Parts: sequence; C-alpha cells; structure tokens
Amino acid sequence: MKDILKKFKSGKLSIEETERLLRSDFVLINDIAKFDVHRKHRTGVPEMVIAEDKTVEDTVEIVRQLVKKKIRVVVTRIPEAHLGAIRKIKGAVIEYHEKPGLCVAYKKGTPEPDKVGGKVGIITAGTSDIPVAEEARIITEECGASAFTAYDVGVAGIHRLFPSLEKMLKDDMDVYIVAAGREGALPTLIAGIVDSPVIGLPISSGYGMAGSGQSALYAMLQSCSPLAVVNIDSGFAAGAVAAQIANRMAVARERK
Amino acid sequence: MKDILKKFKSGKLSIEETERLLRSDFVLINDIAKFDVHRKHRTGVPEMVIAEDKTVEDTVEIVRQLVKKKIRVVVTRIPEAHLGAIRKIKGAVIEYHEKPGLCVAYKKGTPEPDKVGGKVGIITAGTSDIPVAEEARIITEECGASAFTAYDVGVAGIHRLFPSLEKMLKDDMDVYIVAAGREGALPTLIAGIVDSPVIGLPISSGYGMAGSGQSALYAMLQSCSPLAVVNIDSGFAAGAVAAQIANRMAVARERK
Amino acid sequence: MKDILKKFKSGKLSIEETERLLRSDFVLINDIAKFDVHRKHRTGVPEMVIAEDKTVEDTVEIVRQLVKKKIRVVVTRIPEAHLGAIRKIKGAVIEYHEKPGLCVAYKKGTPEPDKVGGKVGIITAGTSDIPVAEEARIITEECGASAFTAYDVGVAGIHRLFPSLEKMLKDDMDVYIVAAGREGALPTLIAGIVDSPVIGLPISSGYGMAGSGQSALYAMLQSCSPLAVVNIDSGFAAGAVAAQIANRMAVARERK
Amino acid sequence: MKDILKKFKSGKLSIEETERLLRSDFVLINDIAKFDVHRKHRTGVPEMVIAEDKTVEDTVEIVRQLVKKKIRVVVTRIPEAHLGAIRKIKGAVIEYHEKPGLCVAYKKGTPEPDKVGGKVGIITAGTSDIPVAEEARIITEECGASAFTAYDVGVAGIHRLFPSLEKMLKDDMDVYIVAAGREGALPTLIAGIVDSPVIGLPISSGYGMAGSGQSALYAMLQSCSPLAVVNIDSGFAAGAVAAQIANRMAVARERK
Amino acid sequence: MKDILKKFKSGKLSIEETERLLRSDFVLINDIAKFDVHRKHRTGVPEMVIAEDKTVEDTVEIVRQLVKKKIRVVVTRIPEAHLGAIRKIKGAVIEYHEKPGLCVAYKKGTPEPDKVGGKVGIITAGTSDIPVAEEARIITEECGASAFTAYDVGVAGIHRLFPSLEKMLKDDMDVYIVAAGREGALPTLIAGIVDSPVIGLPISSGYGMAGSGQSALYAMLQSCSPLAVVNIDSGFAAGAVAAQIANRMAVARERK
Amino acid sequence: MKDILKKFKSGKLSIEETERLLRSDFVLINDIAKFDVHRKHRTGVPEMVIAEDKTVEDTVEIVRQLVKKKIRVVVTRIPEAHLGAIRKIKGAVIEYHEKPGLCVAYKKGTPEPDKVGGKVGIITAGTSDIPVAEEARIITEECGASAFTAYDVGVAGIHRLFPSLEKMLKDDMDVYIVAAGREGALPTLIAGIVDSPVIGLPISSGYGMAGSGQSALYAMLQSCSPLAVVNIDSGFAAGAVAAQIANRMAVARERK
Amino acid sequence: MKDILKKFKSGKLSIEETERLLRSDFVLINDIAKFDVHRKHRTGVPEMVIAEDKTVEDTVEIVRQLVKKKIRVVVTRIPEAHLGAIRKIKGAVIEYHEKPGLCVAYKKGTPEPDKVGGKVGIITAGTSDIPVAEEARIITEECGASAFTAYDVGVAGIHRLFPSLEKMLKDDMDVYIVAAGREGALPTLIAGIVDSPVIGLPISSGYGMAGSGQSALYAMLQSCSPLAVVNIDSGFAAGAVAAQIANRMAVARERK
Amino acid sequence: MKDILKKFKSGKLSIEETERLLRSDFVLINDIAKFDVHRKHRTGVPEMVIAEDKTVEDTVEIVRQLVKKKIRVVVTRIPEAHLGAIRKIKGAVIEYHEKPGLCVAYKKGTPEPDKVGGKVGIITAGTSDIPVAEEARIITEECGASAFTAYDVGVAGIHRLFPSLEKMLKDDMDVYIVAAGREGALPTLIAGIVDSPVIGLPISSGYGMAGSGQSALYAMLQSCSPLAVVNIDSGFAAGAVAAQIANRMAVARERK
Repeated sequence: MKDILKKFKSGKLSIEETERLLRSDFVLINDIAKFDVHRKHRTGVPEMVIAEDKTVEDTVEIVRQLVKKKIRVVVTRIPEAHLGAIRKIKGAVIEYHEKPGLCVAYKKGTPEPDKVGGKVGIITAGTSDIPVAEEARIITEECGASAFTAYDVGVAGIHRLFPSLEKMLKDDMDVYIVAAGREGALPTLIAGIVDSPVIGLPISSGYGMAGSGQSALYAMLQSCSPLAVVNIDSGFAAGAVAAQIANRMAVARERK
Repeated sequence: MKDILKKFKSGKLSIEETERLLRSDFVLINDIAKFDVHRKHRTGVPEMVIAEDKTVEDTVEIVRQLVKKKIRVVVTRIPEAHLGAIRKIKGAVIEYHEKPGLCVAYKKGTPEPDKVGGKVGIITAGTSDIPVAEEARIITEECGASAFTAYDVGVAGIHRLFPSLEKMLKDDMDVYIVAAGREGALPTLIAGIVDSPVIGLPISSGYGMAGSGQSALYAMLQSCSPLAVVNIDSGFAAGAVAAQIANRMAVARERK
Repeated sequence: MKDILKKFKSGKLSIEETERLLRSDFVLINDIAKFDVHRKHRTGVPEMVIAEDKTVEDTVEIVRQLVKKKIRVVVTRIPEAHLGAIRKIKGAVIEYHEKPGLCVAYKKGTPEPDKVGGKVGIITAGTSDIPVAEEARIITEECGASAFTAYDVGVAGIHRLFPSLEKMLKDDMDVYIVAAGREGALPTLIAGIVDSPVIGLPISSGYGMAGSGQSALYAMLQSCSPLAVVNIDSGFAAGAVAAQIANRMAVARERK
Repeated sequence: MKDILKKFKSGKLSIEETERLLRSDFVLINDIAKFDVHRKHRTGVPEMVIAEDKTVEDTVEIVRQLVKKKIRVVVTRIPEAHLGAIRKIKGAVIEYHEKPGLCVAYKKGTPEPDKVGGKVGIITAGTSDIPVAEEARIITEECGASAFTAYDVGVAGIHRLFPSLEKMLKDDMDVYIVAAGREGALPTLIAGIVDSPVIGLPISSGYGMAGSGQSALYAMLQSCSPLAVVNIDSGFAAGAVAAQIANRMAVARERK
Repeated sequence: MKDILKKFKSGKLSIEETERLLRSDFVLINDIAKFDVHRKHRTGVPEMVIAEDKTVEDTVEIVRQLVKKKIRVVVTRIPEAHLGAIRKIKGAVIEYHEKPGLCVAYKKGTPEPDKVGGKVGIITAGTSDIPVAEEARIITEECGASAFTAYDVGVAGIHRLFPSLEKMLKDDMDVYIVAAGREGALPTLIAGIVDSPVIGLPISSGYGMAGSGQSALYAMLQSCSPLAVVNIDSGFAAGAVAAQIANRMAVARERK
Repeated sequence: MKDILKKFKSGKLSIEETERLLRSDFVLINDIAKFDVHRKHRTGVPEMVIAEDKTVEDTVEIVRQLVKKKIRVVVTRIPEAHLGAIRKIKGAVIEYHEKPGLCVAYKKGTPEPDKVGGKVGIITAGTSDIPVAEEARIITEECGASAFTAYDVGVAGIHRLFPSLEKMLKDDMDVYIVAAGREGALPTLIAGIVDSPVIGLPISSGYGMAGSGQSALYAMLQSCSPLAVVNIDSGFAAGAVAAQIANRMAVARERK
Repeated sequence: MKDILKKFKSGKLSIEETERLLRSDFVLINDIAKFDVHRKHRTGVPEMVIAEDKTVEDTVEIVRQLVKKKIRVVVTRIPEAHLGAIRKIKGAVIEYHEKPGLCVAYKKGTPEPDKVGGKVGIITAGTSDIPVAEEARIITEECGASAFTAYDVGVAGIHRLFPSLEKMLKDDMDVYIVAAGREGALPTLIAGIVDSPVIGLPISSGYGMAGSGQSALYAMLQSCSPLAVVNIDSGFAAGAVAAQIANRMAVARERK
Repeated sequence: MKDILKKFKSGKLSIEETERLLRSDFVLINDIAKFDVHRKHRTGVPEMVIAEDKTVEDTVEIVRQLVKKKIRVVVTRIPEAHLGAIRKIKGAVIEYHEKPGLCVAYKKGTPEPDKVGGKVGIITAGTSDIPVAEEARIITEECGASAFTAYDVGVAGIHRLFPSLEKMLKDDMDVYIVAAGREGALPTLIAGIVDSPVIGLPISSGYGMAGSGQSALYAMLQSCSPLAVVNIDSGFAAGAVAAQIANRMAVARERK
C-alpha cells in the first residue's frame, strides 16, 4: 500500500489511478498485512485440504503449490489414490498418519511450527473416537500448541478417566478437547469438573436413530455445563480453535 | 364362552350358530378372560385418557362411563375447561395433581389399588423434569407398585445425587425411572452404577436444536449403558412399564 | 480403600497424602467394589465391542486384553478382516455366529456364565428381523438368563403367532423382546396381550420413507400399550436390559 | 367449442381468429365437457375451501360465489370469526358440524348430492380420531356415497372392534377408511382382515417424538398389508378418494 | 372348528379342554376361513418376499416352501447371489424380470392367477420410473387384474401424455397408478383429469434436497386433487391396492 | 477517498496516517461508491425491516432513522403494536397494506421509486397465496419494476390459468414469480410453458406432513423445468430478485 | 391446427370429428406451436438426461433417438458403463467432460447452439465446487449464452475474489451463478456487492451435520441479500435459468 | 474429608464406618473442594435458572434459597408471572434486563463478581440478535470478564462492521462472541479476520426453511474458518465459555 501511496505522492500515479489501485488491491493488501501484524504470536496455522472432495489432480496441484511456497499443508480424508499421487510430489516431505487418514506435507527444510506453548488436553473415551482425536492432535501441534492425550479412558471402565484427568489438571491444561460418539456425555461430565474451557467434538460412531454423530452433537449443544462445540468429526476445527485459545494463553504467560 | 358351549351341548344352538357366536365373540371373551386369569397379581392397571386431544364432552363421557363401571381412570394433560367439567361428574371422586396436570377419577368407594410391593425408584436432576416424573409416580402407584423419589438431586449440584442414590441402593429398588431433559445424560450415568434395570424418560425441557426432548431421547437410545427408553414426556409409559417389572419381581419375592 | 485407611492410621500416610490418594483413587475403588458387592447374582455381564467402528489392530488388541483377563467379550458388527484377525488371537476361543455377525471370545477354560434363571421370550415376525434378534439372544444368554425364541411367526401368516405365544405364556416368560421392522406393530400387539414387560426392538428392514427402522421406532415410542424401547437394531441393549429384568426376577424367585 | 366451429364455418370468424379462440378457450371448454360426459355417475363432488389459510373476507367471497352458482361447498378448519361471517351470507344455507369444525354451504333449494350407492366403512379406534373421521364422512356423503361408521371401537377395549367389523363385513363395504393416531397400527390390522381396499388416515394425536401424526403416517406407508394412505388429518382426501372408489363400484353394480 | 365342537358334543372333550382348544386355535381357523369365504373372487394374491433384507439361505427356504405349497410367490429386490440360488430350487419355475429386479416363482403346473377383469392404468413420465412401475404391473397381474401401461409419456415432451391418457379414458380404467419422482406433479395432474381413483407412487429418482423420493411423496400427500399414496418405490403396495380396487369393480360388473 | 489522498499529497497526513485511514474507511467508501456508479439504473432498492423479530422501540427507531435520511423502507410482518407505534413517527408517511401485513414508510416528499420498466408477472393459484404474492408485488414496485398479477387463477378451476397466462405472454413479461403452497406444482407447469425465467415462491399454506411450505419448496427444487427458488413465504426475495432481472432487461431495452 | 380447421371448413370433417381431433391433438399442437413462436431468440435449449437413474439400454436409446432428430442432448451423472455404450452410438459425436462427468451428444453436422450473447459469470470458491460449476457452464453455453468463470478464488485466500469480481463487474455480467458448499456464504457476499441477479448453487461438499449441501442450501434460502437458489448440485438448473435470464437481456440489447 | 479422617484416626469411627462415610460423601467433598482450590481466579460463576420450564413456585423457591446462600443467580426466559413473584422475594435485589428477559438476583450486600479482566468482544449484525447477545453480555460480566459490544453493525450496512471491529482489534479482545441469525455468515467472516478464538452464537430469527436458527447453526458448524459453536439462542453458554477463555487469559497476563 505504501508503494502505491508513494508513487501517488511522487506524481507517478494520478488520483484516479491511485483510487482504482487501492480499491482493487485493498483486500489483498489488508490480508497480507494482517499476517505481518500478528505474526509474532502466530506460528504456522496450517492450510487444510479435504482430499475426498477433490480429484487426484486437483489435490496434487494444490499441495504442490502450497509446498512450493513453503507453506505446510494438512491433507485430510485422503483416499488411497490421492495419497499415492501426493507421495510422488517432488521436493515434498509427506508425513502420513494412518489412523486419522491425513498427511502433513511441506518442502524439505521448511521449519516446524514454532512451539508457542499452549497446552491442549485431548480426551476420548472410546477407541472409535481416536482417529478424529488424532486429527485434532496433529492440527493442534501444527498450530504450535502442545497436545496432551488420554485416549483409552473408556476402554477398561470409566474409573480410568479420573487418574488421566488428575494428571491433566496437574499439568494445568489451557483448554480441553473431549471427543465422544454415541450419547456424547463425556464433554458434559468433564466440563462440570474442570475450570478450563472445554470443546466438545462429536464423533460419528454409533448406529440407529441419530447415530451418525447427531445424537452426540445435540447432547453437547444441550449440555447443562458450559461447552463450545464443533461439527461432527471435525478434528480440524476442534484442533484449530483449541490451539487459538491455548496459544493466546501461552503468549500471555510468556509476556511477563 | 362356557355359556355358549353349554347351550350348544344342550342343543339350544346348532353347530353353525355356535361357530358364528364363538367367532364374533371370541376376542371379547378372550380379553376379559385374560383379566380373570392374572387378576391375583394385578391390582387395577389404570385406564388412561389424554384429555387435550378430546372435546370436553367426550372426555367427560369417557370418564363418567369408566367411573360408573368402578374403573379408576387417570386423565392426563387436562386443559382447564376439561378439569372443571370432570369435577362436576356426579358420584366421582376427582384427585387432581397440579404439577403433572392430571387427575385420578373413581367412584366413591372404589378401593385403592392393592399394594403389590414392587419398588420403583424415580430420579430426576432438574426441577423442570418433576411434572413428568410425578405423572410416572402416580401411574406407578395406581398400578400397585411403590414409588420412591429423588427429585432435587440436580438443583444444588450433582454431589447430591449420590446420597439419594445410596439410599435407593439400600432400599434395593426393583427398577429405576430416570427423567432427564437437555443432554439426557443422567440415565446413562445411573445405569452404569446400579444393577437394576433403568428406564430412561426423556423430558421436553431445553431449547434450540433438538431441544424439545429429542436430544435427550437420542442420547438415551445411543447410551453405552444398557437402557430402555420411552417416548418424550411419557410419564405414563415409564410408570406402567416400571410397575410391570417391579410388581412381577414383588410377586416372585412374595411367592416364597 | 481399607489399605489406604490402615496405612493412614498406622502413620504411614499423612492426612494430606491420604486425602489425595482417596480422591484420585476413589472412583476406581468404588467401581470395583460395586462388582464385589453384587457379584453373587451377577454372572458375567458381557463386555461388548463394536468392531466396525474400529481398526483391525485396535479390535484385536481390546479383545486380546479382555480375554487375557478372563473376561468374556462379545464382538458385534464384525467386518471380515476383523474376524480373521480375531480368530488368530492366541489362547482365545472364538465362537462365531454368522447370522448376527458377532462372536463371543474368551480364554480357554473361562467358565460359561452362571445360569441365573431369568426367562426372556424373544419374538420376531419376519425373517429379516432374525439377525438382530439373535444378537439379543446371545447377549441374554451371556448374561446368564435363558432365551426362548419364536422367530418364524410371521412367515406363513399371523395365525402362527398365537400358538408360539401360548407356549411362552405357559412357560411364564419374565420379559419379552419383540423385534419388528417396517410398521413395527408387533410389540404393541403383544404388549396388549401379555402381562410381563415388553421391550420393543425396532429393526432397520424396510425401505422408502422412514424405512431404516425409524418408522418402527416411532411406532413403538407412540404405542398405546406400555412398552419400553431400545435403539434401532440394538440387540445388545434389548438383550442386556431384558436379562437384567429377568435375572432379578429369577433371583427373587430363588431366594424363597 | 361447437359454437366457435359453427361461426368459423359460417365465415363469421377467420381461421386465425378461430385458432386463437380455440387455443385460449380450450382448457375451459375441455374442463366443462368433462363434467358433462361423466355427469351421470357423478353427483356433486364438493368444492372444498380451507378457511384457516384465508382472510374472513376472501373466505366469504369464495363461498358466496360458489353458492350463488348452485355449487355445494365444504368449508373446513373454520376459525370462529370466519364462521360468523359465513353464516351471514344471504341466501346460503350453512350446515355447521362442530366436531370436525366444518360447514357445508349451499343455496337454498340446491338439491342434495344424488345417492350413488357406494359404501364406505369408516373406522377409528380412539375418540381423538373422530373429528377427522367426521370430516371424511361428510365429504364421503357430499360425494353421493354412503358412510358407515364405527368410531368407538377402541374406547372400551379392542374386543369391540370385531363385532363392528363383522357388521361392516356383512354389509360388504366397498372400501374402508381407517383413522389412527399414535402408532397407527389399526389400518394394517384391518387391511390384513378385509378384502376391500383400505385407506389409512393418519391422525395428529399423540405427543413427543414424531407425535404430530408422522409416526402414524410412516407406519401406514411401511405397512406389510396393502394400504393406500393420505396426508395427516386429511379427512377430505380420504373421503374423496374413498367415494371415488365406492361410487365407481356402485355404478358397476347398478349397470347390470 | 366344527371338529372340536363335535368332539365336545360327543363327550370326547371336556368343556375346559374345548375352551382351551378353541382359544389357541381360533385365529388360525379364522384366518383360513376367511380365505374360503372370499375365494371365489380372489385369485391368488401373491405372497411377496423382499430378498435384499434376507440371507440367501432364508430366501431360498421361504421360496421353496411356498412353491411346494403351490403358492405363487413374488420375490423383489433380488441381489445377484439370491437370484442364482433361487434359480436352482428344484421343481420351481422362476420368471425373472430384469428391470424391476424381481421374479415370480411357482411350482410347475400351478395355474396362472385367474383373470378377474379389473383394469389398472399405469402411467409414468420418466424412464427412471419404469422399474418400479413394472413391479406394480406384475403385482397387478399376479392379482388377476389387467394392467395397461403408458411409460414413455414424458420422454419426448408432455404433449405425449394426452394421447396415452385419451386411450386409457376410452378403455375406462378402474383405477390409475401414476409413478413420479423429482417434484412428483404428474399424479396431481392426472387426478385432476380422470374420474377414477388415482394412486400416487413416488419414485426415489432425483438428487439433492429431499431427492430420494421424499419430495415426490410430500407433493402427493399435499396434492390438491384427491389422491391416495403408497410408500416411495413401493410398486408392490400400489399394485396390490390397485388390483383390490379394480377387481372389486370387475366383480360388480360381472355379477350382472 | 479522494479527500484523504489529497490531504496526503498536501502533506496534511503522514503516509502511516493515510494508510490507517484508508484501511478503516475503505469498505465504507467502497460501499457508497458502488451506489454512485450504478445509480443510473437503480431506483430506490427498498430497505426491508422484519418487525416481528424486533421490539417496538427498535423497529420504530430504525424506521425513524431511515425515513429521516429520505430512505424508503418496507416493514414486513408487523405485529399490531408495532404498527401503531410506526404510525406515530413524525414526518413519516405510512402506507399500510393489510393483506401482506406490511407498510412502506417514507418522509413526506420523498419521491416514488423511478419506473425502470421491468415487467414482472406474479401468478398464484390459491387465495391463500395472495398475501405473500402481494409482498412480492410491493417489493417489485418499490424497486421500480412493474408488477402484473393473476391471483385468482385457481379459485374457480385451472382453466382460468390459461387466459391469464395468455395475457401475460402477450405483454411479454421479463420474469415470472409463481407462488404456490401444498404440492407446489404450478411453477413447474408455468416454467414448462413460458420462455422467460420463472422464480418459484413456496407458500406455507397446507397442513400435515411437510405442510408448512416444505413440500412446495422441495417440489420446486426438484422441478424438471428450469426454476429458481426463494425461501418459503419470502415475498421479499422473490420480488427483489425478479425486479433485478426485469429492470436489467428494461435498461437494456431502453439503451437502444 | 389450421389443417384441421381447413378440412372442417371444406366439409371433409364433421363438426364432431373436428371437435374430437382438436381436443386430442390440442396440447401437442400447442406445444409445437410454442417452439415456433419463440424460436427466433431460442437457440437449442439442451435436452438433459440423467444417466445414473437409468439402465444402460434406456440411456443409449434415448440419446440415439434425440441425436437422430438432430437434437443436442446433455447426458449428466454418467456411470462408466453408460459412457462406454453412449460412445458407440453410430453417427453421434460425443463430447465428454470428465470433471462434471457429463457429455454432450449430437449428430455429426448438427450446428452448435447460436450465440445469443447473454453473459453469465460463474464463481466458485473451492476446488470441490468446480465439477458442478462446470456442469452449469456447459449448460449455459449449450443454451447459447457465454460463460465467464472464476473458479480458484478461494484456494489461495479470499483476497483473490476481488480481482476476479472486479473483472466480471467490468465485463458487466448479466447474471451470476455462485457455487458454494459448506457454510454457503459466498453467494450472499457477492449478492451484496453486485447489481445483477445472483443464483446460489449449493454444493454437496462438506461433512457432518447438514453436510451434504443442506447447510449451504439453507444459508442461501435465508440469505439477507436477494438471492435465487436451485437444488443442491443442480448445475443444470443454475445454468438453464441463468441462460434464460442472460439471453433475454442480450436479445433486448440487440433489438436496438 | 479431613474431619472424617481425624475421627477415624482418633478411633471415633471404625474402618467400615469411615469407608462408608467417605464413599457416600466423596463427591460432595470433592465438589466443594474444587471450589476452594480454584477460587482465586474464579469470581462467582453465576448459577442459571431457566424460568419458563418451571412453575412460579419452584422458580421462586430456587432463587430464594440461592440468594439466601449469598449466591448470585441469573434467571433467564422469565414469563411475566414469574418475574412478579421473584420481585417479591424478601431481602433479594432483582436487577431486571428487559431485552434479554432475564434478571440477576442476589442478597443485598452480596459483592459484585470480581473483575478478572478477560476481554470478550460481542458482535451482532442485526437488531434481532441483540436480546440473546445481551444475555451473553450479562453472563460474561457475572463471570467477572469485561464485555465489549458492537451491536448495530448491520443495521445501516456492512461497512459499519469494520470500524467497530478495528476498535476491538485495537483493544485486543481475548475472545469474540458473534451472534447471527438467518444465514449465519458473520462469525465465519470475523473468524477469517481476527486471531482470537471466535464463538458462533446462532440466533432463531428468520423464517421458512430451517428458519428457527438451524440454518445459522449449520452454517457455523460447516464454517471454513475455525469456529466453536453453542446452541441456538444460548447466550448463556456463549457467555460462560467466552468468560472462561478470557478470564484464564487475563489471569495469565496478571501473573507476570
């Protein structure tokens, strides 16, 4: 923007041309400017690409371009054919995570996201909830926050929740992500115990009536405990919002 | 049926007439017979009339006829106009319960339902759930079972649930009705603790998405704990099924 | 818990340490204690694992651990790949039931569930309802109750229902599970005839509008007969709740 | 149409004018012609007006015009204000039926619909279903068919259904309308017994999940017995279709 | 039933035994009797089996038994594996219809259904609606009614509807089945033109919002023309109800 | 914007201040600029206020401010209390339209919207559709387009549609709005006849299943004819889009 | 029609025969006539066939017949087997477009659609929206309008929207199609900026709650900006309506 | 807990009694303890009572008891009768807020919540969204956080959003609540601009399809920007979660 203004001042641009340039370029400038201003406490918010909605060619093209620009990109819901093609992108490092079915792609040498220091506790009762919780974890870490997980709390009985929770309380999590399918009661339970904010992450496990995660989503929306919610199976949204919250807290702590 | 058979044997009815009579009357006979056979451990299953679906005149007429036949009748969801007219039925005693908005009507002198001895624990977390829980309680008692209630467990904090539950566990409830609106998590919680069967009773409190009890219903259907469910706000079904379960248990106990 | 208290009394633990230990361990203790207290009339409530929601590896791992602890486990909705892997678990006996697509897994030598004596009548009108009814039957038996089935009542005409029902009435079932898809009318019909409690089990057969079991579920929820309901295709919930009801009745009978 | 053709032949109309006239007037002619052709076995299909959707003024105006043309009109779902205004239409006879909340309006002297002779059996289990069943009955009769009703079959127990049905079977109904709310099982039951076609009429009584008639509608759509269905509370459609069926049968009988 | 009564009269059965026998056997007798009474104008209502809901073994077993009893059976929604197995049933003739994906199975020598003479007009606008319309046609004919079809009316433009319809009007159909997907407007249009009853048959073609036939179903339920409706894609129900209507009309005509 | 640039050039603003000013004010400027550029063929797009969502005070305040700025405002869905208060706004002319329940408010002396010349045909079959159609008409005219209406086409029979349509075809409408409730078939019918674009306007008349306009909306979305759709009862959107289309056409015509 | 009238005038047809002929042929005539009248500014509206709903044989047959009549036909949603068979149609040119999965088929030598000159701007934010947008583009062009696309506006950030939009504003689009999945906000945004009409095209990308395009559809229906909408993924409807609007505008421009 | 342990150590309680006491009282203790531990950075989380679900008597009783215990209580959705009765509670100060229809009740002398210092920006585009936003604001402040509001950003045009937002960016909000009805696009827009976490608060304004806030809710769940969501109209949940987030940040800042 300053360039345009300088050219205008120096007479290289008429007032009409300046106005036109400012108008058409403004949003672009503004968008980039925003990155600059807040860069210090932002550490590589990952670009996300949902692969299953796109052709192999389009997915590869997007990843190639982002990687080329030294942008780390998270590709989620990757069908096999897409994965194979992504893996062949030259100069790209592809870290594939099997459970959540996603990969992180970046140019060799692109630095890892800075560790900002936000602490995100990710809890899930059932084994079925782990893939989406893992998606949340990876996003969290790509955002520069630290993820602490307790995934097996429900497998051998609810009594295993409390030791896990106790540990997280001691480590003083900045925010919790609680993933649950079926009746979706766990986030309510935990939000009634901890003081940090809790994000409910409804999972599409279950069957029958409202069994693709709707039941869990509705229960979290209706929760008597204060709870914020994301879409069914949206590990991305849960991870990104949690990291925003946790990192801002970490920055506040570090400013002292 | 025996009358028809006797008349047939004595030659007062031809084989064709007998067959016809048996055919058209069969279900009637069968139905009444059923009452006789099982009467000893049944003690006045209440007839139920939903008033809000009917005109004042029809409601009054149905109640009058049932009362006249010495049948106790429970009238639920009574609009004011209906109640006024019901109260004027001659010879009928009308016990009105304000909270659930229902009345029990019977002819003066009709005996109370026999106490069979089944024990039904009725638990509700919120004040908003009490009206429907009260409907369940009255039905339970009209069926001859004993109702034990713990209604205020959620008002001052969940820590009040456990003493109430402890007491019910000591009194060894045969079955539990657990009423809950909003996220409907309480029945799941209790079914994970007690060994007696639990009936989830979803309540239409709440608001917003799936907020007329659907959220609670879905959560109970999806429950990881074994749980049987009735319709939203159906204190009648919860009470009647619970009494069936509890009374059969009581009869088994008493047979010794 | 007593150990902690003894150590406290003997001075090995400070009051603070004792409090902390009690707090973090309480739920664990409580949960296990519950098993002890009620063990006498509980006979191996089966752990259930839904395989289709999990990876092959996770499913196998869960089954292996439970089997190792001499816990009988029911694995439902098993995809072929999962089944193959489960069958290779060393030291585990795998009883596979093809129709319901589930298996019971246990360590060789683990005793069968004790027969408690509760009687559960399982009725289904159509051939399509049998797989889920079979799931309910196996759960019922894994809980130590006895299942009596009448599956073919609707194939050759409704007139075949009554002899089957007559037999069940004679054998005095403690509780009925009635499975039905499509319009889901059978549970209402049977609940109007029998005195024992009836659990409606909606089946996802059918097609078109509300044809994945919703129609059957709604009809059971709206039933004019007293009826408790479980989720669509939830043979597990139906079997577990029915066994709870029937076994408690059996215990009452046997106590005499 | 003949008029136009004659004028054309006689040269009063050019070929272009004739074409234009025919084109714009065709549907009108055709529509009226249809009435002529089939008039002999049609006896005043009633015009229906749904009042609650319209202003008082519009409702009155429509009724006035139809009455003036000696057309009998059925006005349904009449709010009180509309009824008052309709009653003031000069020269109109207003037959008001309180239960279904509808009136039949016609010019004094307009003949009643001819009796064609179709026989429509209308059955309803509950008192709550009567208002809509009455709407069906009045439409049936306005179409010239005869309605036979059995409304109280469910009030004192299902055993009263069979004598009523027996009578209808004897009178050999041409078609049945079976109204039911809640779980909507009655039409399925009756369609399994009678040989005449059955029209299911779902009623919006009930409450909770799918309780505004959806449950009944779905059950009828999913019925294992052959069943045709109309919209929830649509006594009009049930009556009109039933009369079409029955009257066509009656005409066939009378042609002999 | 007469046998039982005779034995009773001759003293071979006590009055108690007689009552018990009558009670348990009644429905069976009644059901069979019904077949006898109405047999003359019923000509082999087809048994229907939905194959896709059942295992190959169950499907084959049911078909084998029905065929053995000289009952014609229609098997719908047949997966390939089922078809192969059905074709191997010994002594069974299998008429397979590829478009609707169904077969008619009967014992060699079982007579075709008697032609009763009812006339059913089956109309469909789009090519996509033909499979379900064909299911309706075959059921219609298996019921002894005659089906007249006009399937291609919509392919080359709506102007082709009228000649087809004109022909059906001339042939004086007793009843119409009108199949339509997408916006489902055709049944409304035709019911506004013809005097015979019209059955709307919604088809699950279409896509997007309410695009699995719901849109068509809703439009038919809301139709301003009198219309009876069956479930989405339920060629069976449409065919069976239409045949009931048409055959009853034919019987009335023939009685003269 | 030019002011800021001039001040910057003249040195009254530093480059940083200029940038900041441009950034914060940009959208405002841009928005107003847009009005200027396109003003010549825009003629008073009405501001719309939905009154029923707001308090009386807020509604009045908004209207007062807009009127004061010589902006014509359309207030829709006005409760009685709001209307009374709006009428008391000083200096405002309030044109109230009773059927659609809306008013146009403007400062005395504010010129009427310029007539641009777009021709919008508004058709509705039923009397119940008129209020929303009227809302569309008023919006259309407030946008400077001319509305041509044919509202009574369905009252006395569909044959009245064609003369109305004929007239509109002759007057060469630029675009049609077709309002319909219930099965919503009219827009499909008309879009199959006319060449101008058609906007379907679903109306919430009707009852029962999908009877609050959903049925009509779905049918329009699924229409086989090319059709654009607006929300249920959204006379505003239909009118505004239609006017945009028609006026752009009119401008094109006038440019010659 | 004139032929018939002439024959009538010359006495070759009686008045009755003439009436009958006119009646049965009217709609046909009328339909064809319509094509004639408006032909001048219509340029080959494409016939569309949805292949996935049809058998390979039916699809091929329809395409063959249309192609033979020199009608260009667009076949959408083509499964592989269908495509193979279509490609073998003799004498047909098959232009296959892989992304939208559709083909245009025409007889060799059939002229391309006339360029009418309407300008349609097609915008999409995400890569996932491109296939449906491409369907809209091809339909638009088959209708003789010119399509201008901006597909990648959302890939690298929203700031790329404005330059694209700026260009379209300069080229003065007659109408916009804006495709969006997920939250569907883009059409609202653009309709708030441009003066030409905007058609929202909801896309079924997304996941979880309302994630098959419903969320986008609802948002467009509820839009505060004036917006017309088509069905989810209906590139056909969007393209056809947009071309109708744009071409009419172009015709108006060219008439000068 | 310490009391019990002391009594045990001193021999006043047996080990069995101690265990029992600990077991039944544990949760109570634990719950209260939690308050103590975290008290320093918690400052009066408000108890909330939804009045409309409860009788006047119950509401008053709950408020009286809480007030008596010096607990500040927020009563939401207050019907007039409830408000009147609440105002008569002796010793209670009742601060009524008319727009959101809620009151804060507390004992005279109860201190205001401590100001913790979290900064919550609350933004709403439309006037209709203000009541729920006000509920969020009051809850926020009752939690000790500071609320900054920008409510009128949408009334006079979207260009007013940016100056408001600019100010909030300058004041460096810790978290944003963005309320929106209709298409619910504003939270997505803002989450794309700001770096602090954004909570979407869907409002039930709007009409027609998905018009009771579902459209807004779905759009927020599907948002491409990272967004956490609460239930429709749940100002309480939005305010409470936002305050949790903001206050934790403030505490981190203050710890330095």
